[in-house]
Amino acid sequence: MRLTRSYRFSASHRLHAPALGEEENRAIYGKCNNAWGHGHNYVLQVSVAGRVNEATGQLVNVGALDALVRETAIDPLDHRDLNRDVEAFARLVPTSENVAIEIERRLRQSWPATFPALAGVRLLETKRNSFEILS
Amino acid sequence: MRLTRSYRFSASHRLHAPALGEEENRAIYGKCNNAWGHGHNYVLQVSVAGRVNEATGQLVNVGALDALVRETAIDPLDHRDLNRDVEAFARLVPTSENVAIEIERRLRQSWPATFPALAGVRLLETKRNSFEILS
Amino acid sequence: MRLTRSYRFSASHRLHAPALGEEENRAIYGKCNNAWGHGHNYVLQVSVAGRVNEATGQLVNVGALDALVRETAIDPLDHRDLNRDVEAFARLVPTSENVAIEIERRLRQSWPATFPALAGVRLLETKRNSFEILS
Amino acid sequence: MRLTRSYRFSASHRLHAPALGEEENRAIYGKCNNAWGHGHNYVLQVSVAGRVNEATGQLVNVGALDALVRETAIDPLDHRDLNRDVEAFARLVPTSENVAIEIERRLRQSWPATFPALAGVRLLETKRNSFEILS
Amino acid sequence: MRLTRSYRFSASHRLHAPALGEEENRAIYGKCNNAWGHGHNYVLQVSVAGRVNEATGQLVNVGALDALVRETAIDPLDHRDLNRDVEAFARLVPTSENVAIEIERRLRQSWPATFPALAGVRLLETKRNSFEILS
Amino acid sequence: MRLTRSYRFSASHRLHAPALGEEENRAIYGKCNNAWGHGHNYVLQVSVAGRVNEATGQLVNVGALDALVRETAIDPLDHRDLNRDVEAFARLVPTSENVAIEIERRLRQSWPATFPALAGVRLLETKRNSFEILS
Repeated sequence: MRLTRSYRFSASHRLHAPALGEEENRAIYGKCNNAWGHGHNYVLQVSVAGRVNEATGQLVNVGALDALVRETAIDPLDHRDLNRDVEAFARLVPTSENVAIEIERRLRQSWPATFPALAGVRLLETKRNSFEILS
Repeated sequence: MRLTRSYRFSASHRLHAPALGEEENRAIYGKCNNAWGHGHNYVLQVSVAGRVNEATGQLVNVGALDALVRETAIDPLDHRDLNRDVEAFARLVPTSENVAIEIERRLRQSWPATFPALAGVRLLETKRNSFEILS
Repeated sequence: MRLTRSYRFSASHRLHAPALGEEENRAIYGKCNNAWGHGHNYVLQVSVAGRVNEATGQLVNVGALDALVRETAIDPLDHRDLNRDVEAFARLVPTSENVAIEIERRLRQSWPATFPALAGVRLLETKRNSFEILS
Repeated sequence: MRLTRSYRFSASHRLHAPALGEEENRAIYGKCNNAWGHGHNYVLQVSVAGRVNEATGQLVNVGALDALVRETAIDPLDHRDLNRDVEAFARLVPTSENVAIEIERRLRQSWPATFPALAGVRLLETKRNSFEILS
Repeated sequence: MRLTRSYRFSASHRLHAPALGEEENRAIYGKCNNAWGHGHNYVLQVSVAGRVNEATGQLVNVGALDALVRETAIDPLDHRDLNRDVEAFARLVPTSENVAIEIERRLRQSWPATFPALAGVRLLETKRNSFEILS
Repeated sequence: MRLTRSYRFSASHRLHAPALGEEENRAIYGKCNNAWGHGHNYVLQVSVAGRVNEATGQLVNVGALDALVRETAIDPLDHRDLNRDVEAFARLVPTSENVAIEIERRLRQSWPATFPALAGVRLLETKRNSFEILS
């Protein structure tokens, strides 16, 4: 069984690859390269998979899962400027692809052995775009 | 090809494992352990997979699928108290995990040989939570 | 300017008017009259209207509004059986109409004089139904 | 990593298999067999999968993906009568199954070698129905 | 109190004003003027307003409201070609404005004296467009 | 009749009132006062009201309305840092209240005499918050 739970956070970012020139940045990122950045209401979906505990009828204690996700992923990113407030994006362009990868890295690093397996991280940048890491 | 179709039902439940003490129940289920129960608008998503029929251009007759799902899963649960109105939950805690498992069991038991394979049952308890049985 | 803010709660209820006979209750409320009740994920929308504060650029402090709505309306109803856990519905049938009226009564009773006017209470029982008190 | 992007189009269709008799058509397609057709707001979800480009932090240039999908799939179907305006459905019944298959065929035919792999095509006919080709 | 209830129907239409020339029609309606029409999943929202019945706690019997709306508005339009299947649009262009007006006319004509007042008809053509008749 | 049409834009902002001290800013705006700002996917809903044109069956030419809204409101705000890229917010705190007021001011200033009346501007900051100017 796979449980998927959704979380929201709002953040701003600017897409600009320092290794590339001004013009190339503009060509690749378009409006997302604007000098002062812009922002989104992101939705983060975290999936866990495993067997249901027979005594409790639950796959995972949702309160414990929420605490972990909030502490490791939501609180450090919510209402932040990703480029300037989050160390991982000092050098790395905070595209949604890289934000999803960074969130998964944080979750894996803190994932308790007692939890069912982390089975997917999906980041929705807008209603039209989703970025999914399949584990 | 996989077709997924959504159904809605409203039901109430109380999460309480008889084998565990009062305090442990409270710790595990939190507000969901309230004595008189509470309720949700559930969304059930049923997926079937197979080859498209060349003559009709359809994977399954949707009317026939709807009739099966309504008879075996929606009508017995809709506008019910899961703990008291549904026999399966006399002993089993009606967590969304167990409700999804029970729905899949009912569907498999009545699944016609002429239908394409049942390829997934997913239960959304709220907009933030989904429980998925991958077949 | 009018600000509308949404809150969610889950609760169960049974529709049964004690003054009416069994058959009449069944005819009026249909499935909602089932003996053990059923439940919903309700959405509550609270609107306030007034002038924007020039210094802060805000109509109301949203944190203060949230605290009021949670304390007076959400916490007493969330994860409850409306018929048995909420005193107002000991005699009153907990239809969504009456739940909306009770929520508005609670909000008005605790509404601070420093807040902009309460300008509307709307209760969504499901995605298809909304009940709105226009002030 | 898998990126999924959504597109919308509106079209009309009539479900009628010329090889079958009037009565059989009526039995299979029900209201969808009405003589003059009816219509839907379709949602098309296109998924691509591969490795993130280290320099840009992107899986695919979304502007290039949009241009391809619009040219090959959206523009030829949007605001059309599928039966009469789209050659593929001169003989083929434009069920959502066949529309999804036709869209995937068009995408594969024009898919640039420089793009990450096409990893899924999903067509939503209404909020309740989705048709998914897994690649 | 105002109750709003949503209904869905799917239909096709072609926007073409016979009194205007080909070119003018093209300029005014754009893609919606395509010769063979296209279609939408419409959402109809019907609002009633009045006092809550003290005995039942209801503003209106929702079952009775549904029966009226289905019979007078949904069944005659659902899965139809508005231009060719609905008499009102033999001469009148089936824009969403005119469809909303026609639906309101039908509802008013059949509205029972025992119902609370019809307090609004709103038609959503897509997620981005709504057409509202305020009563 | 009232037509409401939705538009989307993404932007970042920081809430900080220069006239108030650091501590007061923190107390009023909370996380929204973070030094580097954050962002949202905003939804803008513009309503127009008037009589339907008998010849065209339309309240307003939607293409003309879209062009006006995009030019005066969406393009200047989309993918921008509201504080640094939009002159109106050089001194004014870019709360959603003030953003809605600024958008309405821009629309009124460019509103063509041939259009039906501007009948409402509503800004959704997130799914939970809407800010509405009633005309």
